Amino acid sequence: MSTEKLLQYRQRMRTELDRVLDFWLKYSHDTQYGGFFNCIGKDGKIYDDLKYVWLQGRQVWMYCRLYRTMERFHKPEILQAAKSGGAFLRSFARVSNSGSPWKCAFCLTRDGKALKVQRTIFSECFYVMAMDELARVTGDNDMQVEAAQMMDQLVHWVRVDSSGLGRPQLPGDTPVCSMAVPMMLLCLVQQLTEGRSGEQVDKYQEVGSWCVKQILQHLQRGGTAILESVSVEGKELPGCQGRLQNPGHALEAGWFLLQYGVKNGDQELQRTAVDKFMEVPFLTGWDTEHGGLFYFLDVDGYCPTQLEWSMKLWWPHCEALIAYLMAYSQYREPALLERFAQVYDYTFSHFSDAENGEWFGYLTQEGKVTLDFKGGPFKGFFHVPRSLYMCEKILDSILEK
Amino acid sequence: MSTEKLLQYRQRMRTELDRVLDFWLKYSHDTQYGGFFNCIGKDGKIYDDLKYVWLQGRQVWMYCRLYRTMERFHKPEILQAAKSGGAFLRSFARVSNSGSPWKCAFCLTRDGKALKVQRTIFSECFYVMAMDELARVTGDNDMQVEAAQMMDQLVHWVRVDSSGLGRPQLPGDTPVCSMAVPMMLLCLVQQLTEGRSGEQVDKYQEVGSWCVKQILQHLQRGGTAILESVSVEGKELPGCQGRLQNPGHALEAGWFLLQYGVKNGDQELQRTAVDKFMEVPFLTGWDTEHGGLFYFLDVDGYCPTQLEWSMKLWWPHCEALIAYLMAYSQYREPALLERFAQVYDYTFSHFSDAENGEWFGYLTQEGKVTLDFKGGPFKGFFHVPRSLYMCEKILDSILEK
Repeated sequence: MSTEKLLQYRQRMRTELDRVLDFWLKYSHDTQYGGFFNCIGKDGKIYDDLKYVWLQGRQVWMYCRLYRTMERFHKPEILQAAKSGGAFLRSFARVSNSGSPWKCAFCLTRDGKALKVQRTIFSECFYVMAMDELARVTGDNDMQVEAAQMMDQLVHWVRVDSSGLGRPQLPGDTPVCSMAVPMMLLCLVQQLTEGRSGEQVDKYQEVGSWCVKQILQHLQRGGTAILESVSVEGKELPGCQGRLQNPGHALEAGWFLLQYGVKNGDQELQRTAVDKFMEVPFLTGWDTEHGGLFYFLDVDGYCPTQLEWSMKLWWPHCEALIAYLMAYSQYREPALLERFAQVYDYTFSHFSDAENGEWFGYLTQEGKVTLDFKGGPFKGFFHVPRSLYMCEKILDSILEK
Repeated sequence: MSTEKLLQYRQRMRTELDRVLDFWLKYSHDTQYGGFFNCIGKDGKIYDDLKYVWLQGRQVWMYCRLYRTMERFHKPEILQAAKSGGAFLRSFARVSNSGSPWKCAFCLTRDGKALKVQRTIFSECFYVMAMDELARVTGDNDMQVEAAQMMDQLVHWVRVDSSGLGRPQLPGDTPVCSMAVPMMLLCLVQQLTEGRSGEQVDKYQEVGSWCVKQILQHLQRGGTAILESVSVEGKELPGCQGRLQNPGHALEAGWFLLQYGVKNGDQELQRTAVDKFMEVPFLTGWDTEHGGLFYFLDVDGYCPTQLEWSMKLWWPHCEALIAYLMAYSQYREPALLERFAQVYDYTFSHFSDAENGEWFGYLTQEGKVTLDFKGGPFKGFFHVPRSLYMCEKILDSILEK
């Protein structure tokens, strides 16, 4: 593929990132109560004022990351918005009567009252992401300490004792390894160690390699399938739960592993990331009839029980763009750039909204927009800008060489 | 419409009910552990062996009801299957360490170990339905007593103190009235009082009229909308939750109210049931482009956040058939029979599977089958047979006169 084409890709990533950021700067800031509106209609109208802790954390993280690492976003209004979001989280995210000082709510009222708590770790994970990145741009050491302390609690919940999360003990509920958990912790390890050294890095080394081992357990059936859930012994589970595949999630794991492999000079891991976590989900997950990645699939070809299984969601496509471009950047194999191009063509022609900016999130199997909001309980300022940001950075580095 | 047409409808209801029953008798019985398989593929293959308490209860209820009230189903194998399901429920449905002797699991392993508990009342409600109906066919008084005792607990949870359900108290989580709760309790009142008299009926009179009042609170905006959730004061709630409409659920409420109104000689309630709970959901919920009832709608025209909002599900259509036929039977207005005919044509041409029997449950907005299983975590032996059974009965009574 020509340099011309790569330059075109980079230009599109740039202009698209600028437009997406503009949308959220314009519509999402709650200047009265602080933090961000999450439920934003196709043309920017707020259709609900509930605030989702994990989306608040993601938006703070993304603002800080753009502010810190891209010159054109080093603007006071972006820093200011990130600080407002961080202050809102610090005031309201943690649930006071939950038994642990670190348990966060999933959802808050506009003025910060806890409305719903999930018995998982994901709200807390994005709290850590937000605090650590905010500490980096503000130099506020308290926030970094808070991020590290919450990380200790998360590792404890995941590896030592999950009872603090509040799930009842039931005789039929045998423990299950969900790929999301080690992926999330690995993401936090990368966040907390990036650009640091010494004790701050050593501390997380063992957790990081544990996460990688856990993720690799999801490669099953002689390397022909990535399964979302496996047993604690790393074996396939019976039933629908055991057969579930999420191609976009596998691709996201793929670039997490590739990044980790590059950083740690682990060539075998890099190859596994690309050949298994990127190639397998494409072969099984790409809809050859209508294009795009299926949301869920059953490895034995049964119909998944998730009603949205055949829909095309924005975020798997965002993750696929990062994965294939990062893989191409590492190996320079034309086939990897072709995968990227195929995903790119589908993604930019189907999700990006030329009229009002930002991306649609939910398409039918056939590619029709079926939920037209830009922000919702599960779609914030995260997958789209992170993908555009990372793709721009990777294209910069490819074009530099 | 001609008698000929009504006879055709009745014939189709009959043959379809026979086929649907055959499917479940053939594929769903777990002869090894008792109870029923719930996850059954399009051609009868079991794709998961988890057992859902509410679906087990529904199947027991439906078997007993067919056995008891329709001569052609008064067969020992149907009674035997119902008893097996009842025994499985009595052995395993209740969760021992939950703080209440009446709390049931939502989901069990094949051999009956609790796997998941919901902090709602619905598993328990279908346990009551199963036990009461089973008591009627077996004459086992213990089961009737058990049904009545669990009903007392349910009323306590709903009207006095819900803390036994295990939901955490959160400052932003203000109480909400969900239409499903009084609908479900009203259904239980009808079940527990049917054909009985004296103290057994008087006991539930006040609960029944409370349920009706509660359901009527969901008629909002000057009688132009049925909203799924309202405040405890019967006012509209803010945000997505407050604006949510579920046309099929409103139609189900419609025939519950009509039935109650007929039984109690309340003509005003009968008219409200038809003019509001049946007509409004049709005007707002019928897809004039592709046919069929939308699953969810936002009363202000925003896009619902439920990914399946535009899909066509089997059960709203089952409920619509009962509603319009019951309304026609009561008022003999041709427009009501036309509504029935319109729903009938869509339903039988889209959901019924001529090849393998039973009905598909999930279509795209355009009417394509998108999940092809016949039984799943939310689709058991209930809405389809109850609709066919009730429509056959209603057509019998119309044709008799």
